[in-house]
Amino acid sequence: MPESQLDVLRGKIDKIDEELLILLNKRAKIVESIGKVKETQSTKRYDPVRERQLFDRIAQNNEGPFSTTALQQIFKQIFQVSLELQKDDNRSALLV
Amino acid sequence: MPESQLDVLRGKIDKIDEELLILLNKRAKIVESIGKVKETQSTKRYDPVRERQLFDRIAQNNEGPFSTTALQQIFKQIFQVSLELQKDDNRSALLV
Repeated sequence: MPESQLDVLRGKIDKIDEELLILLNKRAKIVESIGKVKETQSTKRYDPVRERQLFDRIAQNNEGPFSTTALQQIFKQIFQVSLELQKDDNRSALLV
Repeated sequence: MPESQLDVLRGKIDKIDEELLILLNKRAKIVESIGKVKETQSTKRYDPVRERQLFDRIAQNNEGPFSTTALQQIFKQIFQVSLELQKDDNRSALLV
């Protein structure tokens, strides 16, 4: 029954998507906290070194099947939308 | 010590990013399996109804702080890069 096999696989995708949703919002909450800490400091919001470190870590830990470039594109999108979490007008900065 | 508070928060982000990396590749493996099942069937690779269902589910289950639009943008990016996992030349189709 190929249709049912597809249903099983889709069920697995749905479960992972639920977990991704929870993790992404968990991450967003921490990003908000980081933003608040940075507000009280002179620390720059956008830290290219830290972004580079994350990208390097993805490259090191990636066991596939996604390519490292693919994963970096996903994380870039996560950074992009994290801009919305910033309270100030510094929209060109990234919180990572 | 605000700097150390920042370090703690960043450590949490790093841990979540590790989990995201694992989950994304787990998802990618299932997407590959779905692609193989679809190859043996006449099933279309791109299923807009299924994409719509996922987006609706995000809207229903989203507890923030990310906006539903933000999360949908991230998932759109995940679909986009999942195209790379397709073996054939049907690059305009999405596997969801």
